Amino acid sequence: MSSQSLQAEVDRLRLQLHSLQTEDGSKPITISDYLLTRLEQLNVTKMFGVPGDFNLAFLDFVEDHPTIDWVGNANELNASYAADGYARTKGHSSIGVVLTTFGVGELSAINGIAGAFSEMVPVLHLVGVPSTVQQKTKPMLHHTLGDGRFDAYSKAFEHFTIAQGHIIDANSAAATIDRVLTQCITRARPTYLTLPTNLVWEKISSERLKIPLSRLSPPNDPDVEAFVVDEIAKIVEEAQDDVIILVDACAIRHDVRDEVKELIEKTGYPVYSAPMGKTAVSETHERYGGIYVGSITRPDILQKVENAKLILSIGSLKSDFNTGNFTYSIPISRTIEFHSDNTKVQFASFPAIGMKELLPLVTARLKPAARVAPVPHFTAVVPQEDNDVITHAWFWPRMGQFFQPKDVIVAETGTSSFGILDVPLPDESVFVSQILWGSIGWTVGSTLGAAFAARDIGLNRTILFIGDGSLQLTVQELSVMIRHGLSPIIFLLNNSGYTIERYLHGKERKYNDISNWEWTSLLRVLGDTDETRSKSYTVKTKDELSALLDTSSFADAGKIQLVEVMMPKLDAPRALVQQAALSGKTNSYEAS
Amino acid sequence: MSSQSLQAEVDRLRLQLHSLQTEDGSKPITISDYLLTRLEQLNVTKMFGVPGDFNLAFLDFVEDHPTIDWVGNANELNASYAADGYARTKGHSSIGVVLTTFGVGELSAINGIAGAFSEMVPVLHLVGVPSTVQQKTKPMLHHTLGDGRFDAYSKAFEHFTIAQGHIIDANSAAATIDRVLTQCITRARPTYLTLPTNLVWEKISSERLKIPLSRLSPPNDPDVEAFVVDEIAKIVEEAQDDVIILVDACAIRHDVRDEVKELIEKTGYPVYSAPMGKTAVSETHERYGGIYVGSITRPDILQKVENAKLILSIGSLKSDFNTGNFTYSIPISRTIEFHSDNTKVQFASFPAIGMKELLPLVTARLKPAARVAPVPHFTAVVPQEDNDVITHAWFWPRMGQFFQPKDVIVAETGTSSFGILDVPLPDESVFVSQILWGSIGWTVGSTLGAAFAARDIGLNRTILFIGDGSLQLTVQELSVMIRHGLSPIIFLLNNSGYTIERYLHGKERKYNDISNWEWTSLLRVLGDTDETRSKSYTVKTKDELSALLDTSSFADAGKIQLVEVMMPKLDAPRALVQQAALSGKTNSYEAS
Repeated sequence: MSSQSLQAEVDRLRLQLHSLQTEDGSKPITISDYLLTRLEQLNVTKMFGVPGDFNLAFLDFVEDHPTIDWVGNANELNASYAADGYARTKGHSSIGVVLTTFGVGELSAINGIAGAFSEMVPVLHLVGVPSTVQQKTKPMLHHTLGDGRFDAYSKAFEHFTIAQGHIIDANSAAATIDRVLTQCITRARPTYLTLPTNLVWEKISSERLKIPLSRLSPPNDPDVEAFVVDEIAKIVEEAQDDVIILVDACAIRHDVRDEVKELIEKTGYPVYSAPMGKTAVSETHERYGGIYVGSITRPDILQKVENAKLILSIGSLKSDFNTGNFTYSIPISRTIEFHSDNTKVQFASFPAIGMKELLPLVTARLKPAARVAPVPHFTAVVPQEDNDVITHAWFWPRMGQFFQPKDVIVAETGTSSFGILDVPLPDESVFVSQILWGSIGWTVGSTLGAAFAARDIGLNRTILFIGDGSLQLTVQELSVMIRHGLSPIIFLLNNSGYTIERYLHGKERKYNDISNWEWTSLLRVLGDTDETRSKSYTVKTKDELSALLDTSSFADAGKIQLVEVMMPKLDAPRALVQQAALSGKTNSYEAS
Repeated sequence: MSSQSLQAEVDRLRLQLHSLQTEDGSKPITISDYLLTRLEQLNVTKMFGVPGDFNLAFLDFVEDHPTIDWVGNANELNASYAADGYARTKGHSSIGVVLTTFGVGELSAINGIAGAFSEMVPVLHLVGVPSTVQQKTKPMLHHTLGDGRFDAYSKAFEHFTIAQGHIIDANSAAATIDRVLTQCITRARPTYLTLPTNLVWEKISSERLKIPLSRLSPPNDPDVEAFVVDEIAKIVEEAQDDVIILVDACAIRHDVRDEVKELIEKTGYPVYSAPMGKTAVSETHERYGGIYVGSITRPDILQKVENAKLILSIGSLKSDFNTGNFTYSIPISRTIEFHSDNTKVQFASFPAIGMKELLPLVTARLKPAARVAPVPHFTAVVPQEDNDVITHAWFWPRMGQFFQPKDVIVAETGTSSFGILDVPLPDESVFVSQILWGSIGWTVGSTLGAAFAARDIGLNRTILFIGDGSLQLTVQELSVMIRHGLSPIIFLLNNSGYTIERYLHGKERKYNDISNWEWTSLLRVLGDTDETRSKSYTVKTKDELSALLDTSSFADAGKIQLVEVMMPKLDAPRALVQQAALSGKTNSYEAS
């Protein structure tokens, strides 16, 4: 057990003890400020959400807080998306927080919270609710269902959050807040907390605030862990260095990037990534070979992964779009799976042996590979095409040349998330996409959150790729970016509708069409009325786009920019076309 | 029991019998077309929603249907709002239908569905879900939570719909569809139905379609009903014609406008309306005296209502904003309450005695009043103010002069819904507002639905009143109005933020500010790129607005119009200021 885990265990026990002890009588802090102090300790600098009458009093505390700013989103769904993007981009140094009002507000955010659950992102959903008296007497308030079921909303959220807490009095408030936040940070998933209007000013002891909340999970059992390390070492030795590492979503979500890097550097094994694990390992690392996504993997990569004698799979998440529609060809007998809360060595399961502690022990135990297999460098070549049209085959490799280290690159579900897979991203870049949940329009809110987070932690530009169909769902959030002086670059792929759906079904159907907007005037209308804080462009040819990308005032403008990229309606990235064909079969989109 | 109720009872029994009988072997219709035929029978002409991969195949049937059009909304929340507005405006001749996809789509619509539940509006939420095989094997599909809980979304919807149905095979499909639709139309509340991708083309018998679905509730018990009529007649007689009628939300929702009108015409009793009952009785009727809303009622009206010896209360719904924050001063001993599914005669309750059948019997039994109390005509006088500023005190009465018979008038929660209360609306006009649920931004979607419904049933113009804060939440739906050539008139009250919330709490707080948009360019940018299908205006003074309202090309433009009305940030209608003061106290917005 590391000294870090020991310290975390000590802190947890001290907090438990504290809950049982009598109060010291001094009550120097309001419940609101207790909560805000905890968030400050978790490096939260932004709170997303929409004001509503049951959260207004708490908002006074937020507005007056010296280090946490109120963002004020255009609607609640967008706010929840922003909290998700903020949490992802800050990595494990923080969480996302979204504040809504009772009923109407919280329910509008539920899809965003469910997405954070599905994709394992730590988001606190804080809801301003009626006073404790009203919750007992249940008057027919506005924002209620009219039948006295004041708990219907929180019951709905039980399906999409891993912990719920209700602040109901001064005595239990601090313990409730700490429990909900601890679940959020240790399990990297959304939690739900209600704050009644009448308890906002209630004073409680600030004693507990001296004990930090721990991010670390409870330690592994040392005997089982030692056994697992022995087993792994034995199997790795048997594989005689014909071993590859495959990283996936949970390596990012459960914060083992450093541990994986050490494993690679020590052993020298080649490393590949699933789509959701993209950037878990630097895509410029000399041992990194690219993206594995089952049968739709580029053939050179496919063969390297599937022919290895042993695969060390780290944080895998085998969803349809993350596995080429479940077409992995890797037998269990050749796999060791590392997860946040369990380990699988071939057919043997070891519950409660988590990778955060296990991986360093494995790294320490393994020897450097005696013979290092060559790993072809992962590159994307810009193709020579004999026309001016901006095709996906040309666009994505060309964008690869535009990226810089530490860029935050956000790709909307659909053509963008598939298109970007084959492009290596620069060192220390952050890749933000929602490949499992796949809610269209999500990236607009999450770009807002990501841009705030990037500013916090010294990242470079925030760059969004989104289609015209998706942008329409959540477009008003651009206005919030303008108001806060954020400067993302937005590539709006104008392909006249829902292209991913055309590939799945209904290629020429009207239901996949959308209205055409005057995209280049949008930023002005949504708040940049004097045209000083934004810039918009339309590009129709490869040359126009290339020229723009090469302009230094574009690449580093310091203001929000929107580039409308005109693309053919029925063009799509290679991986999307293949995925759609596979999905179409298993999902029964056609009459049989 | 009326012959109508008897016919309904016969139809219900025939359908039950049909479910138990064996199929005749002929299977001439797909499940999709069965469902669409039922919707057609319910006069549904529009289906709202967003395409997604689990509903695409069903959308082929919708697109090919001769009388039901696919609308294609900009997002799912807006689509659910549109279905609600459509259902309200069509009255009891139809229902609203919203189609979404599994998980991401349906959850985005949940606030709209919960609102329809709260406000009692018949909406069918239809969800395209994975195939029946996938629902058994539970692969980690996109749009899932990643943990195999395929039923989490429908469980969440159980809190906000009165019936749920899952189409799981050909045998039970028709009965499931009929059950869910019958609940929707008889109880005037939302229901939820899932359709798996693989059953879209499945053929079933069309036999049941010959039996229509009945809107009528099961008949009242005739003995109890006769007793109740006797009791009511006795109490009315004792009141010696000092009787008033108070109509409310459920008179509209449960379709007793005609019955109420007959009661008024027969007895001659004065009639008043709660805010949610506005337009249940024509506001130009000579016996109509205006709006009663507890202690914030206009004093002349207040006295008439609260001093009456007996109040016949029809379809009351006593929510905070509908009762002046629960300040009714009407004792139970002086009240007879008629509801859709029960009756209360002073302190006595009669469950299962519904007003639809009861009211005509009461009307038949009562005598015309011997002495008819005078009812001052309900009017709104445009005040003479010595400045140019467009104040609420001036604006709303002035708008009253602009309205025409059969207009559909939509008022957003906040300044608009409070402002319009004191203005009489014309004959046969439809008033659309969400006073109980109060989800800001709701009117944009519901205006879209209302405008379609108005076109269907020959109503006049659709006119929306909304603040700048609210419009930002759901603004993209304007684009759908443009695409479909709808021509609502939108009065955008630009008062720089969330005015209703400023009155509740935080008058000068930044969290109640929003970005200022270039509103008059918005319609062009959102799809009217050639500026032929819309017109926008800004008015800053009373004279400018009056001149515009008096222009015939404005009043009947046949294209979508947006009028930005500049108003002072802290001005508000009288009723809102009073309501906010009352709410502030009971809802504990301030430190005590």
